[in-house]
Amino acid sequence: MATIEPDRLMSDLRKLAEFGKYGAGVDRIAFSEPDLAARRWLRDRMEVAGLDAGIDRFGTVLGQAPGVSRAVLIGSHSDSVPRGGWLDGALGVVFGLEIARALRAEGLGNVDVVSFQDEEGSYIPCLGSKAFLGELDEAELAAIEGPEGLPLDRAVARLALAPDAFRMDGGRVTAFFEAHIEQGPRLEAAKVPIGVVTGIVGIRRFRVTTQGEANHAGTTPMEMRRDAGRALIRFAAALPGLIAGNGSPDTVWNIGVMGFSPGAANVVPAEASMIVEMRDLDAATLDRLEQALLAAIRAEDGLSGVAMTATPAGRVHPVAMDAGLQSLIARAAQQRGIAFSPMPSGAGHDAMVMARALPSAMLFVPSIGGRSHDTTENTNEEDIVLGCQVLADAVAAHLRSVI
Amino acid sequence: MATIEPDRLMSDLRKLAEFGKYGAGVDRIAFSEPDLAARRWLRDRMEVAGLDAGIDRFGTVLGQAPGVSRAVLIGSHSDSVPRGGWLDGALGVVFGLEIARALRAEGLGNVDVVSFQDEEGSYIPCLGSKAFLGELDEAELAAIEGPEGLPLDRAVARLALAPDAFRMDGGRVTAFFEAHIEQGPRLEAAKVPIGVVTGIVGIRRFRVTTQGEANHAGTTPMEMRRDAGRALIRFAAALPGLIAGNGSPDTVWNIGVMGFSPGAANVVPAEASMIVEMRDLDAATLDRLEQALLAAIRAEDGLSGVAMTATPAGRVHPVAMDAGLQSLIARAAQQRGIAFSPMPSGAGHDAMVMARALPSAMLFVPSIGGRSHDTTENTNEEDIVLGCQVLADAVAAHLRSVI
Repeated sequence: MATIEPDRLMSDLRKLAEFGKYGAGVDRIAFSEPDLAARRWLRDRMEVAGLDAGIDRFGTVLGQAPGVSRAVLIGSHSDSVPRGGWLDGALGVVFGLEIARALRAEGLGNVDVVSFQDEEGSYIPCLGSKAFLGELDEAELAAIEGPEGLPLDRAVARLALAPDAFRMDGGRVTAFFEAHIEQGPRLEAAKVPIGVVTGIVGIRRFRVTTQGEANHAGTTPMEMRRDAGRALIRFAAALPGLIAGNGSPDTVWNIGVMGFSPGAANVVPAEASMIVEMRDLDAATLDRLEQALLAAIRAEDGLSGVAMTATPAGRVHPVAMDAGLQSLIARAAQQRGIAFSPMPSGAGHDAMVMARALPSAMLFVPSIGGRSHDTTENTNEEDIVLGCQVLADAVAAHLRSVI
Repeated sequence: MATIEPDRLMSDLRKLAEFGKYGAGVDRIAFSEPDLAARRWLRDRMEVAGLDAGIDRFGTVLGQAPGVSRAVLIGSHSDSVPRGGWLDGALGVVFGLEIARALRAEGLGNVDVVSFQDEEGSYIPCLGSKAFLGELDEAELAAIEGPEGLPLDRAVARLALAPDAFRMDGGRVTAFFEAHIEQGPRLEAAKVPIGVVTGIVGIRRFRVTTQGEANHAGTTPMEMRRDAGRALIRFAAALPGLIAGNGSPDTVWNIGVMGFSPGAANVVPAEASMIVEMRDLDAATLDRLEQALLAAIRAEDGLSGVAMTATPAGRVHPVAMDAGLQSLIARAAQQRGIAFSPMPSGAGHDAMVMARALPSAMLFVPSIGGRSHDTTENTNEEDIVLGCQVLADAVAAHLRSVI
């Protein structure tokens, strides 16, 4: 078993949190000065760890183990949301750095480390990992507004980081491991320090709109109204039953957007709309939920003179993590007598992109109070150290089986 | 029985509709040029009808029968909402003018006619009738923004209409009659040409707000959410039952405003709010509804970690129309063999103000399709003529009993 050095790990995490420090968290949006300064510091730390390190056109930092033809890749992202937490993706990057050091000291010098750019999507979600796989569209780069209002490709060129983007060498990289904070309350609530991610959930979003007729709310008898608001409320109130009847125990859903038009206290709403979002790890379950939702809308359409329609408002395919790598993490936890729990990731990560190209796995550590994307985000030091140690053991086991 | 002249009535209505003509309707906001031009024309028509007519400080036009110490007052308002209908209050003003002419021709020269200013509340709802009763607050006039961004009192002074406002002579005016389009679909649906207004409904409005916690809609398990949106939807869906159990058959209600915050598809709503409006003719029924609503909110408050509160957002007291005057209108319809229906007014009118000071009554004519406050507003000519004739008969009967 490899042994990490907790003090070195925590020291690097705390130093990284100085870049863009904002209260107890960090404000380190992709391409900002603090983000780029953090990336330069990470490159230097990788060099000190004996890796051949560099920064690419977008700011992605890659440190490659020298003198080897095959290596595992460990990492995440060091950019943050505005006023975000100090751990988030930074945790996964520093875990990679520490594991590279720890395994090298024990003769396993086949660890590459990465910090991808803009996972948070300040401009393009998972920009760095997409570019790493050659999935980035240059036309999209030119079309999107980057820092300082410039097209993103021109804004990036002005930073003069490097002429090209790193591209994954498929013959070299054996697997991708990403550690991350859970961003939810499950592990803390269950008092379990390790989450073994089974997959990253898929998302289906629909905007549900009702169309009736605006009328004076004083002079129009109730039975003569075509009340778009009331129809949407009735439908929204029935959604929990529809989802319980068609989803899985892991299905989560949300109505995060809701509004009535014209939006006056004394006018019967002519139009109302909401966005329904459903997430599940299983594509067939999402299909079943979507069909049930659309069938229910067809059944409501036209009742009480109110039309009801649904338009797609976003779709993300679920991605399974590699079963063999999951087992390695689980076994590593067991061997150290640490409780772990298989769980889906409800949010997107670079591993979602990477899994399209190679075996990938994720390990979660608990989030205190489930808080995330906020300066109050935190994880107990003990849990951080345990998470890094378990991941190091799993990576070592992986390397011994493939190198 | 007095006999009106349908051609003269319709001709005046159509001429008045030329002022601020907008498509099939009018755009004649209080104090606008078209509004003031229409008021000058009305004053001239009243003079031609033999009345002593003038325009006061605010634009209210009053024509008084000469040589009498007592008179009935008939009228409404000639200002409109933006892009409004050609009838609305203009109908009631021209009914007054026609009835003054018709009754005078038959020796009943005791009819005063009025067009109040800004019933529609472009600046202050029922400004003219409130001023006529001495209920207007000069401090409010100075505080409110009038035309061209000036304080309303200064904007009005700049118009230089007259130094003072008309004030009702309580010893002179025996009663107030106001005709108006129904602004709803009931009369048309029932094929009844005359509505005898029993009263003007009171209104209670409450903003109902829920407060939970914003959370990631992917990573937060359903049972650990404090979902302000879901709590408000559940409550809104139960409102029809609550109101059916505590209201009257005439109670109408509306949820016209609804919104979630922060309002993102992937964020569990931290706060949600809606405005609930309830209307009824009976103050005790409104009290019962209010108590039931507030009790239900107290019962929901704190469930699933979501706080629910209600804050008052508007209150209008119901006003009964004079029973004796209602009987006179009903009898006039019966004597001409015309169907009529007692009904509440779901909207406010100058008669709501006037009823605080003297016996008041309202007569409704049907609105085609129930449409109102829109250029498509209309009433069949036959119904307009019938309405004016019935009101003339009722006024004549009233005058014969009091003069």
